[in-house]
Amino acid sequence: MTLAHQRIKNVTVATLEGEGYGLLHDAVVCIEDGSISYVGNASNAPTAPAECDVIDGQGKLLTPGLIDCHTHLVWAGSRADEFARRLHGVSYAEIAAQGGGIAATVRATRAASEAELVELATPRLAALMAEGVTTVEIKSGYGLSLADERKQLRAARQLASAHPVSVQTTLLAAHALPPEFKDNADAYIDLVVDEILPTLAGEGLADAVDAFCESVGFSPAQTERVFAKAQELGLPVKLHAEQLSNQNGSALAARYQALSCDHLEHLDEAGVQAMANSGTVAVLLPGAFYFLRDTKLPPLALLREYQVPMALATDANPGTSPILSLQLMLQMGATLFRMTPEECLRGVTCNAATALGLTDRGRVREGLRADLCLWDCQDPAELTYQFGTQRLAACWHQGVRR
Amino acid sequence: MTLAHQRIKNVTVATLEGEGYGLLHDAVVCIEDGSISYVGNASNAPTAPAECDVIDGQGKLLTPGLIDCHTHLVWAGSRADEFARRLHGVSYAEIAAQGGGIAATVRATRAASEAELVELATPRLAALMAEGVTTVEIKSGYGLSLADERKQLRAARQLASAHPVSVQTTLLAAHALPPEFKDNADAYIDLVVDEILPTLAGEGLADAVDAFCESVGFSPAQTERVFAKAQELGLPVKLHAEQLSNQNGSALAARYQALSCDHLEHLDEAGVQAMANSGTVAVLLPGAFYFLRDTKLPPLALLREYQVPMALATDANPGTSPILSLQLMLQMGATLFRMTPEECLRGVTCNAATALGLTDRGRVREGLRADLCLWDCQDPAELTYQFGTQRLAACWHQGVRR
Ligand SMILES: [Zn+2]
Ligand SMILES: [Zn+2]
Repeated sequence: MTLAHQRIKNVTVATLEGEGYGLLHDAVVCIEDGSISYVGNASNAPTAPAECDVIDGQGKLLTPGLIDCHTHLVWAGSRADEFARRLHGVSYAEIAAQGGGIAATVRATRAASEAELVELATPRLAALMAEGVTTVEIKSGYGLSLADERKQLRAARQLASAHPVSVQTTLLAAHALPPEFKDNADAYIDLVVDEILPTLAGEGLADAVDAFCESVGFSPAQTERVFAKAQELGLPVKLHAEQLSNQNGSALAARYQALSCDHLEHLDEAGVQAMANSGTVAVLLPGAFYFLRDTKLPPLALLREYQVPMALATDANPGTSPILSLQLMLQMGATLFRMTPEECLRGVTCNAATALGLTDRGRVREGLRADLCLWDCQDPAELTYQFGTQRLAACWHQGVRR
Repeated sequence: MTLAHQRIKNVTVATLEGEGYGLLHDAVVCIEDGSISYVGNASNAPTAPAECDVIDGQGKLLTPGLIDCHTHLVWAGSRADEFARRLHGVSYAEIAAQGGGIAATVRATRAASEAELVELATPRLAALMAEGVTTVEIKSGYGLSLADERKQLRAARQLASAHPVSVQTTLLAAHALPPEFKDNADAYIDLVVDEILPTLAGEGLADAVDAFCESVGFSPAQTERVFAKAQELGLPVKLHAEQLSNQNGSALAARYQALSCDHLEHLDEAGVQAMANSGTVAVLLPGAFYFLRDTKLPPLALLREYQVPMALATDANPGTSPILSLQLMLQMGATLFRMTPEECLRGVTCNAATALGLTDRGRVREGLRADLCLWDCQDPAELTYQFGTQRLAACWHQGVRR
């Protein structure tokens, strides 16, 4: 059992205050009733109450709990067979003609029960949690009907209640065109706007609304209808934008004060500027970049120049990023995108929190939630540099050591 | 305690017999005193003795234990700081001038005790074992003196005796030029050939001999001196070959019946043919390819055409592949090198065994060692396709469930 008062002493803290890591050495962090009640040096720390669990950090590194701010964690079916066929030379067009691709995931997800979806997602969530993830965003988007989008989001909520991890749900009904609306995208957007969004918002299942704006997805005009409805319902928006081409989706999203625009390989300077003005986070997804063998890099220099906050996420999904590891995204963010270790760590902590509209976590600061990771290393750059060894020595979710 | 007799029933077995996976469905595998005593269908299986541990595989997938046939697992010091500086724009030349790069690892490894090296390597080995690795090759090459190469190899042997995993050691004294031999590579090769090889071979510390043949490493002539001495000592050879340029190292290695040539991005057809003739395994290292952001792919089509067996390994090392995950190499072998899932799995089982000169493991076959992995999936392609979830349901090393 975790006591109401805990004190983690003798740690190096990456607070993420200011720019960079915001390091504090030889520090003490106190936890009181699930929140951080003190961060600072030992001499100024409050006297520990009699009933206090004191943890000796032995000089290890303490960071905020990690936040994976872009996942499609709830799905059914496997695309391993399709993956193998691609590697044996079968074309994507042929696989799509055989009902493969996202259509296969939609079919399987529709066929699965809510309980089955929870069961299938559990090992995926466990993999993220084992790496120190304390908050994870989960999108719908494989249901593409009122009942099936509801089922996905309810499964996401169930995962949160069954595990010591926080889940932010995002309604992504405008992810792909369901087969019953083939060649009739506007009619599907009618359904999304008139029925799916208001109903599921009313049921409290959606913390945000997302769309896939792309030449092979929904147009900017269709995307804007989704955003307008979300705004009317009081829900913040996000966007899968400029992944395969520049649709100026980011500028559109910025007009709706989007929390984040995600992917962004084809983002141009006007889009960067629009995001900077609206405080929109750039969520970079190196797992999809890697898996699709993309060569077009997101505009890192421009994002830095305009001081757009950058986050990193797994984009965990069966089609374009079957990679259940946020720590690998730290390594890939550095290796593939040349992000600095500071940018990578901020990308899975403070900036990931901003990408989800969360102000109560993502830093080690008094008053914030006690979502914390203790790592078996001293230099935070280790978290980005070396992949594969288990460095997580302890993890707290809302003050409870898990 | 593991009983002398075990029976794993109700499994799909990837035997790796023939080409491809060599799948057997609804199969039974029996283990007797550390070896596989039966592989086949249930009806032909021998009657279980009274004292027999029966494991119901519940339809899961059984494969040989995984083999990581190329690692530099024993080192001291961290290059995280150097990695961070590179990402902040410091050039490799500048870092090398400041004593960074492999020189830093050599300094730290020389300064460490054997016990410290064992302690530092333990979490790295644990990471590999957690993924199902039952045999791992470990090279020296950061000592570069008799005493320090000995220390590295002794640490590797100690790791094997402390953990339920098999270790094959490779003496890689000709890895880099130690500072005391600056501008005098031939004199260092004298030391390697006259002293280091014979002494450590005599102490039984080396199962094989390796070298780094490259424009920035040792010349083919220097490499050949090392190979000739290894041959004289009765030790098989391997080679780091054609990674950065074509030195025709593979053809040279083939003349010495090398077990493997490793890296091979710049291998040409003559080299492929030479390897095919000598039965030399091509060990591909996608982790280094990824980490160095290489764009030159190894000649997969030629390797297939000449039927050169291909293996995959982590190349785990602090400079060019700080990636402690053989399962990620399966994913990268497919995604980056376009290897099929069958080729990837063979690359960490039967072909990896051949790359180490081992004939007693790497397949599920009667009479071989009972090094086995039970995976929580049915389709072997899953092992290559999706990364990050823990699928290893059980693992046996020499018949002992660990
Ligand atoms: Zn996505
Ligand atoms: Zn190597």
